[in-house]
Amino acid sequence: MKEQGTYSPGLDGIVAAETKLSFLDTVQSEIVIRGYDLIDLSEKIGYLEIVHLLLHDRLPNAAEKGRLEQALKNEYEIPEAILELLKLLPGKTHPMDALRTGISALAGYDANIDDRSSSVNRERAYKLLGNVPAIVANSYRILNKQEVVLANKDLSYSSNFYYMITGKVPSAMEEKIFDQSLLLYSEHEMPNSTFTARVIASTLSDLYGALTGAVASLKGNLHGGANEAVMYMLLEAGTVAKFERLLDGKLANKEKIMGFGHRVYMKKMDPRALIMKQALKQLCDAKGDDRLYKMCEAGEVIMEREKGLYPNLDYYAAPVYYMLGLPIAIYTPIFFSARTVGLCAHVIEQHANNRLFRPRVSYIGERHNRNVISN
Amino acid sequence: MKEQGTYSPGLDGIVAAETKLSFLDTVQSEIVIRGYDLIDLSEKIGYLEIVHLLLHDRLPNAAEKGRLEQALKNEYEIPEAILELLKLLPGKTHPMDALRTGISALAGYDANIDDRSSSVNRERAYKLLGNVPAIVANSYRILNKQEVVLANKDLSYSSNFYYMITGKVPSAMEEKIFDQSLLLYSEHEMPNSTFTARVIASTLSDLYGALTGAVASLKGNLHGGANEAVMYMLLEAGTVAKFERLLDGKLANKEKIMGFGHRVYMKKMDPRALIMKQALKQLCDAKGDDRLYKMCEAGEVIMEREKGLYPNLDYYAAPVYYMLGLPIAIYTPIFFSARTVGLCAHVIEQHANNRLFRPRVSYIGERHNRNVISN
Repeated sequence: MKEQGTYSPGLDGIVAAETKLSFLDTVQSEIVIRGYDLIDLSEKIGYLEIVHLLLHDRLPNAAEKGRLEQALKNEYEIPEAILELLKLLPGKTHPMDALRTGISALAGYDANIDDRSSSVNRERAYKLLGNVPAIVANSYRILNKQEVVLANKDLSYSSNFYYMITGKVPSAMEEKIFDQSLLLYSEHEMPNSTFTARVIASTLSDLYGALTGAVASLKGNLHGGANEAVMYMLLEAGTVAKFERLLDGKLANKEKIMGFGHRVYMKKMDPRALIMKQALKQLCDAKGDDRLYKMCEAGEVIMEREKGLYPNLDYYAAPVYYMLGLPIAIYTPIFFSARTVGLCAHVIEQHANNRLFRPRVSYIGERHNRNVISN
Repeated sequence: MKEQGTYSPGLDGIVAAETKLSFLDTVQSEIVIRGYDLIDLSEKIGYLEIVHLLLHDRLPNAAEKGRLEQALKNEYEIPEAILELLKLLPGKTHPMDALRTGISALAGYDANIDDRSSSVNRERAYKLLGNVPAIVANSYRILNKQEVVLANKDLSYSSNFYYMITGKVPSAMEEKIFDQSLLLYSEHEMPNSTFTARVIASTLSDLYGALTGAVASLKGNLHGGANEAVMYMLLEAGTVAKFERLLDGKLANKEKIMGFGHRVYMKKMDPRALIMKQALKQLCDAKGDDRLYKMCEAGEVIMEREKGLYPNLDYYAAPVYYMLGLPIAIYTPIFFSARTVGLCAHVIEQHANNRLFRPRVSYIGERHNRNVISN
């Protein structure tokens, strides 16, 4: 056993893994994804290309992209029993809890569950990339007593996802913006959910278990739950003036305000937020209603002035999803669905070069003598 | 952001949390549980007392023990829909995957799911301590097409658990040994599953999610899966001579042998193993069949001589469970059920003094120029 090191609460600043997948380079202000700048990628490629990049370590040519798209379409359908199982959940079940239960149950359909080789894990990742959007969309629909919407294989990956959620085929602009949001959410170094997935995978447990744990993590208010919290705050305010008063009130009460700040970026703006801010402008212009954009801009000014804090991705993804007509309750499940590829890539990497995570503690409790308990 | 520290694979030797719950004191050779020595406790008290100690920070008096027992009995019944849900899982589902799915689904029945105060978390822990044995026992029964066995509130906690698994009320000796095994598994500092639960809880996600992740972790072969692996190895051999040949063969092939060694104990015997070794002797004597005891002893000698490795708890818990007539496939779910209390206590502690786990990475991949991708 090594000597115990100094204690850094939350493992702040501690290196937990070596990775070739991604890195938040705060010095060069770059979100590095397999060597590329995520923001650069978000302006030039789509979600499927980043899936290929993360799972196969290179951007696809046209033929490879076509094969990947077909492979995912082959996995669009989920077992009928999974839909039946979701129907058994109480109607007040949180959408993330329904998603977690659905992914957990999928494990029983995997005939090679004990094979953790990279090639089988990659096939498994295809299955999950195909299945998760259907579970996200239909667990929401079932909990809200709506009809199930099955996948439409004629649509693109993002268009089909949007279609299963809303029952409508998106416009070209809506499809492009939704796809871009999935890309921006696809991978982001070592947030709590990714860390959870790697910790679980390090016992040589399987991909379904690692993802189940990651859903549980992402559900938390300090993690993926932030995008929904932002939207409820914007809707509660409703106008620029009221939003400013609401923020001023929260600041005066020293309340934490969701959508601002990030452990790693700290005093810089999350570059992904800027891309979604542009998308929000585009959607607001197209729909002739710039209220949400004006509110968000006003919030940005206040938070920079009063706290020196900048928006993170959730702050602008939330109103973008709202303008896209997506139900607020599944913003976090959508985030998870987009991150599925990053999580799978991390589990593949962990299994390929594994060391069990098993840290120590600093014991700060009492010590008693052994003879203190009588029989 | 702090500077990134040196990288310790698997966080070996890194302090991940401050805790008042437990500590593996390798210097004084003591498993400290809220200040007491676990081995001492295992000889003087039962599982319910350690549940009280872990959740309420003190050993109970008779009245408190009675109230705790009644509180758990009030939670023995699981929702009918959970049994229906388990019946929808494919028959080849791994018992740990069924358990994970069942615990995940329980979240939808919690009316106070957003309350993470210690008092509500403690009530939730009672519910889980009542429900988990029923899910463990009946998910196994359902997957194996056996009749569901509902709880019998006339029996003690451990006796009822044994009864739901086997359909039989245990003898006094069987009950005592099973109860002692649950106590020994109840809490053990910061193994991977406990770490997983705390990492998830640190997003302010809830107890069900944290436990769901912990099931996924414990399923892994490098963690809870070891007790089952030990039993299959013992049964494959069948005699002392064949077991010795099997171990020699595995050692010659440099295969990992389950049931020996521990990241923290390293070159010392896991003191819990010795208690289960005594229990195995007792069971073998009572049943007039000492084969498993002799085989285990012979294995111990070989592993100490050849590798300097000592048995861990799983090595002796496995044959004890076998002699108790418990099905091998649920040894790991039983381990989880026993550990539920430790996991709940860690989540309560994490929520009461929280800092989000968010470590960093060491990026060892390539870097490309931004202009390398064309539109």
